[in-house]
Amino acid sequence: MSNGDRMLKIYVAGPEVFLPNAREIMDRKVELCRSYGFQAICPGDLEIPPQPTKKAFGLAISTVDEDMMNRADGVIANLTPFRGISADVGTCFELGYMCAQGKLVAAYTNVAENYFERAARYYHDRITEDAKGIRRGPGGLSLENFDMIDNLMIHGGIERRGGHIAIHTAAADALYTDLTAFEKCLKALSAQVENRVHPNEGLRPDELDAANDG
Amino acid sequence: MSNGDRMLKIYVAGPEVFLPNAREIMDRKVELCRSYGFQAICPGDLEIPPQPTKKAFGLAISTVDEDMMNRADGVIANLTPFRGISADVGTCFELGYMCAQGKLVAAYTNVAENYFERAARYYHDRITEDAKGIRRGPGGLSLENFDMIDNLMIHGGIERRGGHIAIHTAAADALYTDLTAFEKCLKALSAQVENRVHPNEGLRPDELDAANDG
Repeated sequence: MSNGDRMLKIYVAGPEVFLPNAREIMDRKVELCRSYGFQAICPGDLEIPPQPTKKAFGLAISTVDEDMMNRADGVIANLTPFRGISADVGTCFELGYMCAQGKLVAAYTNVAENYFERAARYYHDRITEDAKGIRRGPGGLSLENFDMIDNLMIHGGIERRGGHIAIHTAAADALYTDLTAFEKCLKALSAQVENRVHPNEGLRPDELDAANDG
Repeated sequence: MSNGDRMLKIYVAGPEVFLPNAREIMDRKVELCRSYGFQAICPGDLEIPPQPTKKAFGLAISTVDEDMMNRADGVIANLTPFRGISADVGTCFELGYMCAQGKLVAAYTNVAENYFERAARYYHDRITEDAKGIRRGPGGLSLENFDMIDNLMIHGGIERRGGHIAIHTAAADALYTDLTAFEKCLKALSAQVENRVHPNEGLRPDELDAANDG
């Protein structure tokens, strides 16, 4: 998908960078992006030169990834729960970073259960309801219950910008490799960019939100 | 701390909004901010009017919180692990949002164990090392090992901007209420703003980073 002459660049965010076959999954994502007319930018595309300390190496990766985001026109974030009940925190940082820059945003999860359901399971359903009707876990910590895939800043930040959130149930052994929902994000981004190029002046932002919902 | 005539506004980010006594903790944070010359802006400061659906209510909060961040000059993020081994994902989104806007950033955690140690414990120390020396959990997912408090985008995003990261060991029953490290962030922000007002021209950005380290 081009914006004038230039192919739009999509930053590919998600915990698949931690997979043993990260490069293979990234290559599949790059190929899918290309088939929808987008250029993928992936963390891990650049070799990081050796650094004097572990900390310095981490900081060097952070620099490269932020530079990539600064050059990108949008992001597709993989928000599938990672090492717990929520999305990978690095991916959430990146999503916030891109939202603040007014870039195109889309996200997906390969787990259909919503955040409230996962949090209730985390507490083994030992949930109580206070006088105001707020559900709380054993420590008294309230549970967000907003029909959202994760914390409201994450889900809200995407949906309020008209960004697509694709929800898919992947097989347990394909939680980070199933790209069905990733492809749905690409389709939605294509349509969104198409609408920008030929804007429908009659559509209010809230209608756009509704049109991109689900 | 003022910037010219105006008191600098600090957005107070963290999972303490989920506590039963959230307002009380927020009030303590507001008071501490004031004692260092900052004005605190807290999620939850505004009453959200009733909305037709749970989803709409979540979106309304997201709008209010982003507006608050847009008006703030900086953020202090509570990155204490929340419902798992990593920081609250909403807080991580907010941190990324503020980093992208070039605002002042500082963060703290009330757990001294670093991310690698927490992840290893999450996997009950069933960690293997591959041919390249990368440690991996049972599913083959690599473990970040960068002497950082959490994912490198989080820790790196703060440290590379010269932001302070305060690490403190709180009692188990004061994990989200102990404000020792929060106050250290306020001290560091004060010094940082003071340096801006009277800049030390001889200090390179990497020296500034080092000066703010720890």
